[in-house]
Amino acid sequence: MVRVALDAMGGDYAPAEIIKGAVDALLATGKDDLTITFTGDEAAIQAELQKLRADKDRNGFDESRISIVHTTEVIETGESPVNAIRTKKDSSMVVALKMVKEGKADAFVSSGSTGAILVGGQVIVGKLKGVRRTPLAPVIPTLRGGALLIDCGANVDAKPEYLLQYAHMGSIYMEYVMGIKNPAVGILNIGAEEEKGNSLVKETYPLLKAEPGINFIGSVEAKDILDGKADVIVCDAFAGNVALKTYEATGSMLLGMLKSTLTSSTKNKIGAALVYPSLKAKLKKFDASQYGGAPMLGLKGLVVKSHGSATAKEIKNAVMQCIDFSRQNIAEKIAASFAKETSAQKED
Amino acid sequence: MVRVALDAMGGDYAPAEIIKGAVDALLATGKDDLTITFTGDEAAIQAELQKLRADKDRNGFDESRISIVHTTEVIETGESPVNAIRTKKDSSMVVALKMVKEGKADAFVSSGSTGAILVGGQVIVGKLKGVRRTPLAPVIPTLRGGALLIDCGANVDAKPEYLLQYAHMGSIYMEYVMGIKNPAVGILNIGAEEEKGNSLVKETYPLLKAEPGINFIGSVEAKDILDGKADVIVCDAFAGNVALKTYEATGSMLLGMLKSTLTSSTKNKIGAALVYPSLKAKLKKFDASQYGGAPMLGLKGLVVKSHGSATAKEIKNAVMQCIDFSRQNIAEKIAASFAKETSAQKED
Repeated sequence: MVRVALDAMGGDYAPAEIIKGAVDALLATGKDDLTITFTGDEAAIQAELQKLRADKDRNGFDESRISIVHTTEVIETGESPVNAIRTKKDSSMVVALKMVKEGKADAFVSSGSTGAILVGGQVIVGKLKGVRRTPLAPVIPTLRGGALLIDCGANVDAKPEYLLQYAHMGSIYMEYVMGIKNPAVGILNIGAEEEKGNSLVKETYPLLKAEPGINFIGSVEAKDILDGKADVIVCDAFAGNVALKTYEATGSMLLGMLKSTLTSSTKNKIGAALVYPSLKAKLKKFDASQYGGAPMLGLKGLVVKSHGSATAKEIKNAVMQCIDFSRQNIAEKIAASFAKETSAQKED
Repeated sequence: MVRVALDAMGGDYAPAEIIKGAVDALLATGKDDLTITFTGDEAAIQAELQKLRADKDRNGFDESRISIVHTTEVIETGESPVNAIRTKKDSSMVVALKMVKEGKADAFVSSGSTGAILVGGQVIVGKLKGVRRTPLAPVIPTLRGGALLIDCGANVDAKPEYLLQYAHMGSIYMEYVMGIKNPAVGILNIGAEEEKGNSLVKETYPLLKAEPGINFIGSVEAKDILDGKADVIVCDAFAGNVALKTYEATGSMLLGMLKSTLTSSTKNKIGAALVYPSLKAKLKKFDASQYGGAPMLGLKGLVVKSHGSATAKEIKNAVMQCIDFSRQNIAEKIAASFAKETSAQKED
């Protein structure tokens, strides 16, 4: 049974969509699978639960699997992450992270400040022994399923040894959580050849090529990401973020434009009604919310960051993802992987 | 009058689309505006010109404004750029670049190997005095017109001083070629705040903020690029390439998917016929070919790289762009700008 500590106050649609998503996850699972603890303003959480008791799609959810820890503070997106984690001891985020640290929960999920989650994960939950940096690794939609873009977190000036560890952690995640056997690992690059790239990529490439235990396939350019050429794409967090955010922004701009065009006149609305079912089916595979949130890997427990704009569907999937992560003992597998390693284990 | 040396053999659709685009540019201008010299296989070029004499949209073009320099070699995309430029002395690219170097042409346009163009630009045409690195700077489509993404070329491990020079070169280009008064300059970043970014961005940010003669507006995230928040976006070439290629790949994947859906059944085709005119009008502003090619800035002459997949429209626009660049004396303006500077002028 997996115990998830859920930050009810983080994200654009908190607490309503967070509570909804959690209840949906409860409804989709049995009582031996999942319990949820909400951290946040108890009155606000209770008010949302009350609404869901009257919701015909959600009423009858198992209330015995829900608990609430009342907190009085909220970490805002604009705050300094280090300061916020240090000073807001009674925030929904810090209290939930401490539950993981103290073994009262197996996993933490939040749509709150990415910076605060990254700091809190490291400082409160703590790194596994042998792990040098803890990457944030969203699964992004591709034409052939999802690919793990590792790292999109805080490690912007990365070293080759970090990327080498990301290759292992990412492979473990994709194999045991996403069910992909022998996942293909690539390095984000700006050309296909081995000699391409900046100094980080040039130094890392031969190390990945020589590394046992991973299925390295070489450089992955932007178009290869979308084609689904690799299952795990390692990169420094600056490049990873640029790729991720450009992908999301371009997609959302084009879809926004499509939507506004299809509803801009009666003629267009008629045309849209005809093409909409096929279009919706095609675009479904590019819905990132199907993959839940981005796990922060290499920690002693599971920390998952969902989008700030996450709605119930993404929260539900993020919670479901925690079940696979915990059942597959991903943290233990990562720890075991680095206990065997020597080359990348040196602390700095 | 601007003399363009055009590599007739570079790109996926050479020489046919290159010659067509050049002829379209001749038809759109007067004889005091433009002459074109094709470098490449004379028989192949003549065969294409012969076809265009029979083309009802293009016949009657002024043949006296065209000349051909026969060359026997072609630089392929897969070749080592440095080797190719050094050894293929009779290639269409090297011969055309030498014309710029020797003052026989004002500008060079090619859809051939980006690597070879970057090497050839530096080695054959040569850097302007005071210029530390010569960036490749494509104009990318945004919701508010085009933005210059500078650098997407070879300088992957950049220094703050390079980015400082890019800000000046990019501002001059956008003001005098694209007609944008006091262009807004941003730095590509992964967050809005000054303290965000990798070490390059953190070091460069305060220098840009303090730099006179540019209109610095701060960090530009991926979504800001597309919103058109900045006219000039400085970055190292690795990050620039990741942003550019992700943008192009995402756009082309989504549009490809849209196209295949709209033609996948009779019902969809009927719907498509209704929405197509509005959709086409909306998407037009995201057609990168309207901006011609990417200029390589900071050289003693103009070198323009058009897409490998460029068709006649982009080639025409790339040639037209050479006219503005030369008439506005962009190279002289850049040289003058760095003659005044001292801080960023030191050679390394």
